[in-house]
Amino acid sequence: MRNLRGRHRISEYISSTIVEWFAWISSKLLEIMQKMAKHAIAVLSFSIALLTLAPQSSCSQPFKSVSSRRTPRFPGRFSTSKLPSLYDSQLLKQVPQYRYETRYFEQRLDHFSFSKLPKFSQRYLISSEHWSGPKRLGPIFVYCGNEGDIEWFAANTGFVWEIAPSFGAMVVFPEHRYYGKSMPFGSKEKAYKNAATLSYLTTEQALADFTELITSLKRNLSAEACPVVLFGGSYGGMLAAWMRLKYPHIAIGALASSAPILQFPEIAEPDSFYDIVSNDFKRESASCFNTIKASWNALTAEGQKKDGLSRLTRMFRLCGELKDSEDLAGWLDNGYSNLAMVNYPYPSDFLMPLPGYPIREVCRKIDGCPDGTSILERVFEGVSVYYNYTGKVDCFDLYDDPHGMAGWDWQSCTEMVMPMSSNPHTSMFPRYDFDLSADKEYCRTEYKVNPRPEWITTEFGGKDIMTTLKTFGSNIIFSNGLLDPWSGGSVTKNVSDSIVALNTQEGAHHLDLRAATAHDPDWLVEQRATEIKLIRKWLRDYYQAKGAAN
Amino acid sequence: MRNLRGRHRISEYISSTIVEWFAWISSKLLEIMQKMAKHAIAVLSFSIALLTLAPQSSCSQPFKSVSSRRTPRFPGRFSTSKLPSLYDSQLLKQVPQYRYETRYFEQRLDHFSFSKLPKFSQRYLISSEHWSGPKRLGPIFVYCGNEGDIEWFAANTGFVWEIAPSFGAMVVFPEHRYYGKSMPFGSKEKAYKNAATLSYLTTEQALADFTELITSLKRNLSAEACPVVLFGGSYGGMLAAWMRLKYPHIAIGALASSAPILQFPEIAEPDSFYDIVSNDFKRESASCFNTIKASWNALTAEGQKKDGLSRLTRMFRLCGELKDSEDLAGWLDNGYSNLAMVNYPYPSDFLMPLPGYPIREVCRKIDGCPDGTSILERVFEGVSVYYNYTGKVDCFDLYDDPHGMAGWDWQSCTEMVMPMSSNPHTSMFPRYDFDLSADKEYCRTEYKVNPRPEWITTEFGGKDIMTTLKTFGSNIIFSNGLLDPWSGGSVTKNVSDSIVALNTQEGAHHLDLRAATAHDPDWLVEQRATEIKLIRKWLRDYYQAKGAAN
Repeated sequence: MRNLRGRHRISEYISSTIVEWFAWISSKLLEIMQKMAKHAIAVLSFSIALLTLAPQSSCSQPFKSVSSRRTPRFPGRFSTSKLPSLYDSQLLKQVPQYRYETRYFEQRLDHFSFSKLPKFSQRYLISSEHWSGPKRLGPIFVYCGNEGDIEWFAANTGFVWEIAPSFGAMVVFPEHRYYGKSMPFGSKEKAYKNAATLSYLTTEQALADFTELITSLKRNLSAEACPVVLFGGSYGGMLAAWMRLKYPHIAIGALASSAPILQFPEIAEPDSFYDIVSNDFKRESASCFNTIKASWNALTAEGQKKDGLSRLTRMFRLCGELKDSEDLAGWLDNGYSNLAMVNYPYPSDFLMPLPGYPIREVCRKIDGCPDGTSILERVFEGVSVYYNYTGKVDCFDLYDDPHGMAGWDWQSCTEMVMPMSSNPHTSMFPRYDFDLSADKEYCRTEYKVNPRPEWITTEFGGKDIMTTLKTFGSNIIFSNGLLDPWSGGSVTKNVSDSIVALNTQEGAHHLDLRAATAHDPDWLVEQRATEIKLIRKWLRDYYQAKGAAN
Repeated sequence: MRNLRGRHRISEYISSTIVEWFAWISSKLLEIMQKMAKHAIAVLSFSIALLTLAPQSSCSQPFKSVSSRRTPRFPGRFSTSKLPSLYDSQLLKQVPQYRYETRYFEQRLDHFSFSKLPKFSQRYLISSEHWSGPKRLGPIFVYCGNEGDIEWFAANTGFVWEIAPSFGAMVVFPEHRYYGKSMPFGSKEKAYKNAATLSYLTTEQALADFTELITSLKRNLSAEACPVVLFGGSYGGMLAAWMRLKYPHIAIGALASSAPILQFPEIAEPDSFYDIVSNDFKRESASCFNTIKASWNALTAEGQKKDGLSRLTRMFRLCGELKDSEDLAGWLDNGYSNLAMVNYPYPSDFLMPLPGYPIREVCRKIDGCPDGTSILERVFEGVSVYYNYTGKVDCFDLYDDPHGMAGWDWQSCTEMVMPMSSNPHTSMFPRYDFDLSADKEYCRTEYKVNPRPEWITTEFGGKDIMTTLKTFGSNIIFSNGLLDPWSGGSVTKNVSDSIVALNTQEGAHHLDLRAATAHDPDWLVEQRATEIKLIRKWLRDYYQAKGAAN
């Protein structure tokens, strides 16, 4: 986390109420807490992670010593540069493999200017195996690739693959520019070299990539009249929804799963993310929630003591000596937040190998330690469910990948300014008030770029995007699992007859897009069935309109 | 016209039927005709022109010798570089002057990337004189500036100024980037230096400019809830209509006058432009139409004869020696096409000082010459109505402004690829079949840029944009005068309840946007009244929805 400190250090804002809340600790302690919270919030994002396999631990059993990797909390800063190793590894081979061809499409680097820039090859995965073809106006299912390797999304979006045959649908997974193998300038190293090379990593360019690819693909197949249905999860879901607004002629509808398009300035409540994470813990156990809530001060206090950092290093089984207790706080925050996202009802390994309802398991650990176990020992036991469920990790490395420039961090430093705060009255995290000027300072320091916090809303439907969607949009499913912290910034209410929210109380981050399993609860089966029904309706409407026009 | 030859020379395509049509002339003649037609078509565009004042002529009266200027046929290549002199001149002071402030707004050069580029100042004209203010949700009327100096559009768009007071509306005229005083890189010279500096002259960037300006303006005035109505004529009308598709949240409706959004590959018939020009002449007089139709061969034949170019130079009172008869053909084509655009029912001076229904006057001249007057003498008499109605021109300069890089030519070499052909069965112009490869060659030679002929349709609603408008659009008036050759590429049928076409049989290019005059025929008064009624309905609907929501 060393590389995130730029952000923390500039976060000097201390509100008046925080003084009351932390009245019992020193002002120095306060400052560090603040930094920690800032850290946690500023970099939190959709999760793509490196899997780690390590032996399980408990309050009473010491860890075995095996090799380990720490988990990045978000795709840009930490994980992207590691993705190739993930996707090249044995691990990828363990996730479901679908049959597709891998192809490349030449794209302009800047669709909206005529600057002389090198074109780049956008990767896309394609399967026509079940396509009923252009004559029968066979549909084309397109997954809007998000901030990572497209193979990984393809592997984790079983829903699209599973329903395609019954629709006679072609399946296409285009990769998002600057991720995976879709690198401008020929390589990741060159694409991520500096702000100049990264400058074309924007959402509008990505949407234009999709549009150009789909248009060209259809033309080449004489499939201009074939209806396209978009799919996307998380940021990919945002892209799918925005495609409906900006390129309504490209697709007849979009399933936007866990797509926080409202998580922008002056739209959604910035508290919602941490409130939902916190509630996910509280619903399992009030004492678990309280233990975690108390742990931040305990952690900071311990870090301040003589040899405290060394004790924390040992207690949390860190591979290297802890430099600042805030680094550890960030690691914990990351674990809790990711747990909330993947709080799936059955065992899964999307981000990590985890049991069903993993937060239940975390709280069981935290609450179940023998009397006399310290708060910090308890939270370590708890968070180990996330970082070390298999029990094979010998130590945790907080300082992994310290200097990799990463895609999502760039995006959050440019367009994806998604304010988050932590409300001390409702959250188990330390108080934090979103601090745009601190973020700007970080982005200027880190990337020499100025964020444009207002741009996304200006470009995509305005502050009152719900009215814009209602008035101009159609055929979007916003599916949400309400345990997912991103659901707070997503559309969770029906907007119109054809823009609907499908919420599940017990669902987490884009669970519906995952492959069906034998363990799927009824509500999940029903959610997917409704999605299929709606997609069938879009197609029926399209064919009817097409028939009437011909 | 010398500077257009690049285009002609590469136009070597000769179709099979053209041989039949021109069977009686030599293959060389054919080639030249072809070049001439190509010339006429490739550069034809919305008109902004330099006014010329000169004494009137007739078949029997020789011209007096006074100073002259030739009229550019389109805004980019010829006129833009001359615009400052027009707007600085006494001539501008003769057109209606409206009261406004001139302000500047800082814009990004590329809204869709984070490239380090210098910002530029976009000029806009603003009047709050009649605005009822933010508390009363006073409307904001925004004219989408097109390819020229915004002061000139403001002066020629009296309709907006005249209706604003009764609406309690603010009036804003933002200038289009790279025109007038809205020059990136600090000056026109620098902005138009080369393809690299020109590369940000695109429609998407211009729309984003409008969006950013309007959003900022409203925020600064605490007028976020005030409804915006867009206006635009010609290319400005296209921008207004496209704004409704791409930024539907920015404005509640758009009056798009003479906006040929269908004049793109595989949408509108490419013949329509020249067919309409031709019909405008034919409706006045079949013999006039036939004389013009026969004149092209006569012109080419004369140019081929010994001393023919010298005779043509004298006959057409050219200031300099004619170098190629095709240059003269282009000048004639330009005159006829512009006449069709400004074939207004009353005397006007939008492009030139002209009588009411000037084509009627042209045909009267052509038909009215004494027996024995040659075809070429007749067409010269006719076209002089356009180029020299005041009779004060002593000679015509075909070779004006030969090297100025110009905005619209750049735009037509990049995004604004608007195919036009001339159908020998219906047109009075020589046959020409749209030749994309020749255009591409021209653009590569002239600007070192590759046109993207498919991009506009990909970006704005697809090939089936009528369905896209019907399905996703709302509140657009497409107003057309059916004498206007651009009406062939415009929306002339109602699309939906709220996207309507208001056509006038006798109207020409965005006549409705001009200031009311005492000579306005009833149908024009009615057209404007309907527009006002529809705009009032948009506002009423908006206030009702707003009231219901509050």
